[in-house]
Amino acid sequence: MVDSVFMAELSWPEFKQKMDENVIVFLPLGATEQHGPHLPLSVDVVLPTGVCERVAHEVNGIVAPALPYGCRSQPKTGGGEGFPGTTSLDAHTFSLVVRDVVRQLVQSGVRRLVLVNGHFENYAPATEGVDLALRELRRDGITDVKIVRLAYWDFITKETLDRVFPNGCPGIELEHASLMETSLMLLLKPALVMMEKIPSDGPAHFPPYDLSPVPENFVPASGVLAVAHGASVENGRLLFDEHVERIVAALHEIF
Amino acid sequence: MVDSVFMAELSWPEFKQKMDENVIVFLPLGATEQHGPHLPLSVDVVLPTGVCERVAHEVNGIVAPALPYGCRSQPKTGGGEGFPGTTSLDAHTFSLVVRDVVRQLVQSGVRRLVLVNGHFENYAPATEGVDLALRELRRDGITDVKIVRLAYWDFITKETLDRVFPNGCPGIELEHASLMETSLMLLLKPALVMMEKIPSDGPAHFPPYDLSPVPENFVPASGVLAVAHGASVENGRLLFDEHVERIVAALHEIF
Amino acid sequence: MVDSVFMAELSWPEFKQKMDENVIVFLPLGATEQHGPHLPLSVDVVLPTGVCERVAHEVNGIVAPALPYGCRSQPKTGGGEGFPGTTSLDAHTFSLVVRDVVRQLVQSGVRRLVLVNGHFENYAPATEGVDLALRELRRDGITDVKIVRLAYWDFITKETLDRVFPNGCPGIELEHASLMETSLMLLLKPALVMMEKIPSDGPAHFPPYDLSPVPENFVPASGVLAVAHGASVENGRLLFDEHVERIVAALHEIF
Amino acid sequence: MVDSVFMAELSWPEFKQKMDENVIVFLPLGATEQHGPHLPLSVDVVLPTGVCERVAHEVNGIVAPALPYGCRSQPKTGGGEGFPGTTSLDAHTFSLVVRDVVRQLVQSGVRRLVLVNGHFENYAPATEGVDLALRELRRDGITDVKIVRLAYWDFITKETLDRVFPNGCPGIELEHASLMETSLMLLLKPALVMMEKIPSDGPAHFPPYDLSPVPENFVPASGVLAVAHGASVENGRLLFDEHVERIVAALHEIF
Amino acid sequence: MVDSVFMAELSWPEFKQKMDENVIVFLPLGATEQHGPHLPLSVDVVLPTGVCERVAHEVNGIVAPALPYGCRSQPKTGGGEGFPGTTSLDAHTFSLVVRDVVRQLVQSGVRRLVLVNGHFENYAPATEGVDLALRELRRDGITDVKIVRLAYWDFITKETLDRVFPNGCPGIELEHASLMETSLMLLLKPALVMMEKIPSDGPAHFPPYDLSPVPENFVPASGVLAVAHGASVENGRLLFDEHVERIVAALHEIF
Amino acid sequence: MVDSVFMAELSWPEFKQKMDENVIVFLPLGATEQHGPHLPLSVDVVLPTGVCERVAHEVNGIVAPALPYGCRSQPKTGGGEGFPGTTSLDAHTFSLVVRDVVRQLVQSGVRRLVLVNGHFENYAPATEGVDLALRELRRDGITDVKIVRLAYWDFITKETLDRVFPNGCPGIELEHASLMETSLMLLLKPALVMMEKIPSDGPAHFPPYDLSPVPENFVPASGVLAVAHGASVENGRLLFDEHVERIVAALHEIF
Repeated sequence: MVDSVFMAELSWPEFKQKMDENVIVFLPLGATEQHGPHLPLSVDVVLPTGVCERVAHEVNGIVAPALPYGCRSQPKTGGGEGFPGTTSLDAHTFSLVVRDVVRQLVQSGVRRLVLVNGHFENYAPATEGVDLALRELRRDGITDVKIVRLAYWDFITKETLDRVFPNGCPGIELEHASLMETSLMLLLKPALVMMEKIPSDGPAHFPPYDLSPVPENFVPASGVLAVAHGASVENGRLLFDEHVERIVAALHEIF
Repeated sequence: MVDSVFMAELSWPEFKQKMDENVIVFLPLGATEQHGPHLPLSVDVVLPTGVCERVAHEVNGIVAPALPYGCRSQPKTGGGEGFPGTTSLDAHTFSLVVRDVVRQLVQSGVRRLVLVNGHFENYAPATEGVDLALRELRRDGITDVKIVRLAYWDFITKETLDRVFPNGCPGIELEHASLMETSLMLLLKPALVMMEKIPSDGPAHFPPYDLSPVPENFVPASGVLAVAHGASVENGRLLFDEHVERIVAALHEIF
Repeated sequence: MVDSVFMAELSWPEFKQKMDENVIVFLPLGATEQHGPHLPLSVDVVLPTGVCERVAHEVNGIVAPALPYGCRSQPKTGGGEGFPGTTSLDAHTFSLVVRDVVRQLVQSGVRRLVLVNGHFENYAPATEGVDLALRELRRDGITDVKIVRLAYWDFITKETLDRVFPNGCPGIELEHASLMETSLMLLLKPALVMMEKIPSDGPAHFPPYDLSPVPENFVPASGVLAVAHGASVENGRLLFDEHVERIVAALHEIF
Repeated sequence: MVDSVFMAELSWPEFKQKMDENVIVFLPLGATEQHGPHLPLSVDVVLPTGVCERVAHEVNGIVAPALPYGCRSQPKTGGGEGFPGTTSLDAHTFSLVVRDVVRQLVQSGVRRLVLVNGHFENYAPATEGVDLALRELRRDGITDVKIVRLAYWDFITKETLDRVFPNGCPGIELEHASLMETSLMLLLKPALVMMEKIPSDGPAHFPPYDLSPVPENFVPASGVLAVAHGASVENGRLLFDEHVERIVAALHEIF
Repeated sequence: MVDSVFMAELSWPEFKQKMDENVIVFLPLGATEQHGPHLPLSVDVVLPTGVCERVAHEVNGIVAPALPYGCRSQPKTGGGEGFPGTTSLDAHTFSLVVRDVVRQLVQSGVRRLVLVNGHFENYAPATEGVDLALRELRRDGITDVKIVRLAYWDFITKETLDRVFPNGCPGIELEHASLMETSLMLLLKPALVMMEKIPSDGPAHFPPYDLSPVPENFVPASGVLAVAHGASVENGRLLFDEHVERIVAALHEIF
Repeated sequence: MVDSVFMAELSWPEFKQKMDENVIVFLPLGATEQHGPHLPLSVDVVLPTGVCERVAHEVNGIVAPALPYGCRSQPKTGGGEGFPGTTSLDAHTFSLVVRDVVRQLVQSGVRRLVLVNGHFENYAPATEGVDLALRELRRDGITDVKIVRLAYWDFITKETLDRVFPNGCPGIELEHASLMETSLMLLLKPALVMMEKIPSDGPAHFPPYDLSPVPENFVPASGVLAVAHGASVENGRLLFDEHVERIVAALHEIF
């Protein structure tokens, strides 16, 4: 038998056996989005998948295929749709994908499902997709399912943030393509990080409003919203271990 | 600079440079679907992605992230939704995903796009998605784009089919989880093939109609629609090389 | 009482009596699409309706009004949307029509329903429509319905094909506006066939891929994809009788 | 060349020639709906199609295939969905059908289009469908199209109403399956009218509100909302001729 | 405790108590639409809300927040979308709003719901929205709800019409921004009526068809479809009292 | 002429004149949602409308009718859909409403539009609605429009927060039905605030994940997520004045 935490690598009888054991299934929600000149377009797929893989090992779960295309990028959180390579879905499309995948996983036997988000803009439409799936599943008579939604970056202590940002954290919401994501990529996919290309045109200074069309120079030209300098594999290890540990703890609480 | 045919591994300036060179972009259309007890759920992702990777090398193109969830599986072509692990989208959802990804890739600069299908049920809704995207793009004033749709298995000669099936091909449409897909998987992902689990309950004998709900025993219990015996890495090589060679030839013809 | 196999000609109490007898209801899926210079735009309505009428007589069923507009025509199977007169629905629209008509027929009492397709491009979205209707009907507590989907042209023996095509069949998928459809029209609506206008610019030679926008000369200018010469009322009779006989046999098997 | 006012009977080159002549195209909007025990389910298809056929002869136009399934029947205007045989579309589905058919007809060259309604509930969603089509066509750069919407029964003089209803008209909105529709069917499809089955349980007395779910006895059990007694072929002729004459006059005014 | 008929002014425990008492809930369906130079854009919100408020007082009910944006304005009933300020929803959007609000009110405990329409074009898509909500609610197992739909202007006697229109009523459907609406506004929001701006370019003379695009001068330039002269607070009182009285009577009949 | 900042109170010629002057138009995005036992269901309508009214006075703008129903309430930000009275739209419905209203306002002449949000869950689907409207407007050839999105509560200084929360702010995201909203309501609608009903079961302690179905006791039973004690009209004045002042300043920056 294939021994893998990845659902994609299991045959259907192996998957069925996992269902008979009522394992936790993880669904990473990714995106194909610019992450500056030093990181690849797949950061938002790599990071939640990496977290899911480790957490699944810890809790004996499996990881469903990550959604590689996310909900439309917004300037303040991902740079927006103007960067070549950013390739996104409409919110309604993304919600329907989540609805369908959640519904079909549950129809296949999943009763403990954890959506792990890696792209800020996915959160609201993923919530909608889960709500729509649950509405349908109730009408199908299925009510014994638990669905968790989380963003891995929310599983962090103030202590760790202080260690990673000795001069103070600029705010997690600005951390797009910046120190934290770069550090985590150095840990998980070092070959795809080009440290020498880290730009210095950040951090962005955003007003407390959004404006369409997006004005010139609203977003740093590099696409890095805060500052990536200071990224290191050590910081990546620190962040990753804490994300994993705290998510595992939360899952023990929930299930 | 990262040297990769995978768009996911490029940074946005690298992707932009590819656009400036007007490279061909490949989009593999996959699925998460049962493929018998001897093959993993990801066959329909692995195979078109593998073909795209090689073809992209040949024509200096790049490969966008594969769609990991396909359109609802049908009994005669994939065993249907009854197998645990098969996890599909509604046709409308799938068409919207294709519409959005195609539209955004073109908005990002892609002018030569090739959709490579690995899951039969994707073909019609992918066609719809492309038509919807082109309708929108025309209204955006973009008319200089060429979009190819193909299924890799259609790029095969009668000679090769005769070599692979010395006793006659049962029909490519039955080849789900059977000799051809198993052979290709032996070539591309041998660790995920469990030859000892190849079942013998096929081939299916389907009537010339479809029936809902699906009757008992309509589909072989294993999910293998034809016969996987006879699969070999040599056959995989034969098929793969021909798929690649002929798709490359077609692309030279088109572009 | 009106004695008619056409639901359109029955009053509602007559229809209700049919439901009390649990008769089989047929729904022809048509299109308004070019069929060359010698055949009318309604071929895909006339032929499945004609088959349904005869089969309904044989099995004591009734025929619901045919859908006159089908799913978007594709170049390789119907010439595509470029021919004046071809008037099609988007796939999603077509699926919703099928969903609604199927759901309402079942709500009206139908428990044995047969969709008989006359336009290739309808098949996948009709399948989707049926799946969506059944999903809703299950939630309405209706689970005792059987729905058959078929294309009349699949009900044919090799022997008959050999008789109709003494020089070999070019492939049924190319038979748009060609020998088979022309022969059947000569049988069912001879006044609408203009034999003297049969063109000779076919057969089409299609590559194993699809290309958007459709290149010049991809499709024969006449819209006839194979060859219509050789069409005759005798061939039409041969084909029609076999379609009817084999569909009737299949229905006896199913119900 | 086939000489027919029915688009369905034309080949595509014949249709194209009609487009070159910029003929008026008529689209009948029908329904499959109960019309009492004495009339068939197809009244709302037969009557607007009959009017279109005659008007098309007068103005040298052609008639596109009628929509056989209409928008959900309402109790006060058609008896509602509770009658077996009434088979309707959701309003959104119906609007999308109208949008697609209108858009594709215009894309095929139609510039003068007349929607002739035969089912009250179709009017609002047909208007929506036309508005959606025009919105899309404007974005396609097509602005020289004129689209008329009408219900044939609105083309009537007070004089004729007085002759047809010597004791006063109960209100055209109640005329479902009643004197006017029965008279017109006697003219156009006499074989489908069973005068001996005309019921006497009407007219309905509706309150000035609508109530869901529909209360018992809200609608006469027969489905005839007013009174069909008094129907005659002479009345049908009177009504039909005036409908035709006045619609023709209106079209001369418009085009 | 706040003593208000307006749901918007209640806290949730107060609303819950109303639900425990099974009070009737009113939902006014409004619009933001031109009503001539003498009336504000909110006439279709003010009038049904005013009627609901009084009726709710009489039957001890409450009034949910009015929908301020209605379904697309049509030339013959509201002047059409060409007037600056008219701001409408697509029919599908409006139906979804009604579906969601109705469904959620019922999920919140409402079992007696009355939709009071103030904008003609809302009626059909509101009916659709209610039908869609009830379809969903049945699947949720909720079947003990009664939903009334009405337009306040239908609750009027011939006697009152004769008093208000001594020279004969031009037809209620033409009464847009005319005598009746102006009179009611004089009663309910006198400060928003500018009698000196009442125009004299009406009444409109509409043909029995609709035409797109709308021809020049189809609608009186002022947007008043009939005649507003003769409006008075006395007429407003007469109309309003009768609307209220007759709606109250109808509700006693229904519930 | 009516002198009002409310679009609802203007006649269409008055609105047109405002358009000729290119005034800024404000669209408040509200909700009908529980706000504890001491506040009415309309808090999320009252507050952004109040801010818009004052800001409109300052910048000579007008206020379009507020959307009274918002996007589905989530437990952590509004208590969730379980509270009686909370009445919300699906995200897709809400996005379509925003799309339609924005598109039609712009079609009516608006070129400077400010969406002022009062309900957290509205933000993401409002962004989607604006993006969809702009996509359509670009295809209509309208590109000279500027659309601002903001939440009034983001326009606040740290100094003011410190004054309002002498013991430290618990986080604005928890401020549902708490000190800030209560203070603002004391300023704007004091009659609707029942200070004696302020509960003490908060603040909520939410984990860094979301869970469906929502566990018992996840949300304080009162629906107040933080603490409302300390609310005062003085605090309301402080907050309100700063919101207004800073939004006005931002608008001067933008336009």
